[in-house]
Amino acid sequence: MPETNLQILLRRRPVGAPVLDDFEIVETAVPEPGEGQVLVRAQFLSLDPYMRGRMSDAKSYSKPVEIGAVMEGQTAGVVVASRAAGFAPGDVVLGGYGWQRFSVVAPERLFKVPADNPPLSASLGVLGMPGLTAWSGLEDIGQPKAGETVVVSAASGAVGQVVGQIAKIRGCKVVGIAGGAAKCDFVVKELGFDACLDHHGDLDAQLDSAVPEGIDVYWENVGGKVQAAVFPRFRDFGRMVMCGMVAQYNEAPGADATGAPPGPNLGPVVRKRLRIQGFIVSDTGWGRYGTFRAQMEGWIAEGRLRWREDVVDGLRLAPQAFIGLLKGANFGKLVVRVD
Amino acid sequence: MPETNLQILLRRRPVGAPVLDDFEIVETAVPEPGEGQVLVRAQFLSLDPYMRGRMSDAKSYSKPVEIGAVMEGQTAGVVVASRAAGFAPGDVVLGGYGWQRFSVVAPERLFKVPADNPPLSASLGVLGMPGLTAWSGLEDIGQPKAGETVVVSAASGAVGQVVGQIAKIRGCKVVGIAGGAAKCDFVVKELGFDACLDHHGDLDAQLDSAVPEGIDVYWENVGGKVQAAVFPRFRDFGRMVMCGMVAQYNEAPGADATGAPPGPNLGPVVRKRLRIQGFIVSDTGWGRYGTFRAQMEGWIAEGRLRWREDVVDGLRLAPQAFIGLLKGANFGKLVVRVD
Repeated sequence: MPETNLQILLRRRPVGAPVLDDFEIVETAVPEPGEGQVLVRAQFLSLDPYMRGRMSDAKSYSKPVEIGAVMEGQTAGVVVASRAAGFAPGDVVLGGYGWQRFSVVAPERLFKVPADNPPLSASLGVLGMPGLTAWSGLEDIGQPKAGETVVVSAASGAVGQVVGQIAKIRGCKVVGIAGGAAKCDFVVKELGFDACLDHHGDLDAQLDSAVPEGIDVYWENVGGKVQAAVFPRFRDFGRMVMCGMVAQYNEAPGADATGAPPGPNLGPVVRKRLRIQGFIVSDTGWGRYGTFRAQMEGWIAEGRLRWREDVVDGLRLAPQAFIGLLKGANFGKLVVRVD
Repeated sequence: MPETNLQILLRRRPVGAPVLDDFEIVETAVPEPGEGQVLVRAQFLSLDPYMRGRMSDAKSYSKPVEIGAVMEGQTAGVVVASRAAGFAPGDVVLGGYGWQRFSVVAPERLFKVPADNPPLSASLGVLGMPGLTAWSGLEDIGQPKAGETVVVSAASGAVGQVVGQIAKIRGCKVVGIAGGAAKCDFVVKELGFDACLDHHGDLDAQLDSAVPEGIDVYWENVGGKVQAAVFPRFRDFGRMVMCGMVAQYNEAPGADATGAPPGPNLGPVVRKRLRIQGFIVSDTGWGRYGTFRAQMEGWIAEGRLRWREDVVDGLRLAPQAFIGLLKGANFGKLVVRVD
């Protein structure tokens, strides 16, 4: 029996936290590549918090997924048919071709990557969009200098893992914030952070003890109570790298949604000469993918960069896994093995 | 009868808005310059909002004025005696020598300036710290590009006047925000801003109408309700130049004072890739004073840069004038003619 395509569609826009009924799983025919296109079979799908924004039609930096369309996402897979120069069956490629088993894509946005060593799924994590996010955000905005103190929220997550390890390579003191003892243990023992604070505990007291000197760079992945605890602790000339605020993605998905909780009083921004800056990796990151990947592969080869993945087996489980991601249920970079 | 020195001291730290009894006016002997010092007689004293911070002992970027010490401030005056190389009686100098008629100073932090053309008081405003603040903050942080929309709060004030006019010179659309019709008229008719909004009116409605395209650069002098109205209107890659938040200087003078009102939710910083950055002119500004002054004098000579001063006659009136400054009672750069 020939394979069918398996696709996960956006059935309706979530209100608050997504639920399973917001998605629809369909089986369809495998598409045929047109002239200049390639047909790719996904092996891994990346699940990332930004996808919550794509499910909403609030104004944002990117168009929402249409109702009935395939959910967007980065995937790593294998070319099974090609009508595009430079691509042949068997090529292993990275690209943004969505929550589906097969997809027909134009080759401009595909990157050929090794099939193994490191394992292919790493091209969706440490060597993919999350890793590139960490690398470029530190390079462009955080600019950590040796001896500085860097605090990373969602420290065991796909981006946080990489942020902290690069900051360690740069000679910084690095303190992570994560949810629970298991994640914190991993962050310190496996990734080599200097400390990790559990946001289920008294974060103010833990910060008092872990960073009495204050914070030079804060990598913001979460917002909410973590942001509130960290914000007053910046040192002069501190930088706040605004990568995401996942804590409120289900509450305030809109650009300026009424009802979004207030943020910190900005008085310290003047007094301490802080810089608070947001970025989206797709603005400038991909043009530097080659440079990024070469540097990261070097660090991996030297044993200076490790990572942990949370692999979900089977595309049909992607919606449930994504719902968990927004609650911090994953432990490490969340990827789906596409069956 | 020989002249005496007249000095205004900090008598006690204000609670909330300063009152006259927080200051003490004393007459003392004219000091003698020591070896390597000069004796300066002030002609003008600059009054600026940052001085409120110096009256408080909350942690800040600069040490507070001690109780019983002369209030700090920039002054322009004339050397009356010199025991320092390079300075002679009659030299006209700019320096930070406080709320007093006479002062003995080391020459390192004195700038010689023209006695006239432009008038000496301009060296405390458009050509002094406020002008340098505007110029360096735009240069370093705001970076307005031709065709962009720039919004300036406290637009008729010492800094705001200059910010808006430089942004016009750079080819921007410039919209001021000021308190009352007289200030707004001045900002549009005399300074050439494209529009000016009265924050006593419905600021949201006025912003809807004046900047429907959104804001690329917001120059923050005030905070409070003006900030709240402006913040949701940034365009992608907008910059918020954090120069001051005078609206809360009497309420939340401390670095992170309990009770400071909350600020904006920072979600848009990620989505719109905003940069919010604070600065203090003394960090990097004075090293570029010569470059700044040459460029500004060029613009003044070309008739492209105007200014308005609010001159208070007599040093004894400085406390009252300063109290009014924090409430927006002045109209233009506030200076005191030192009698």
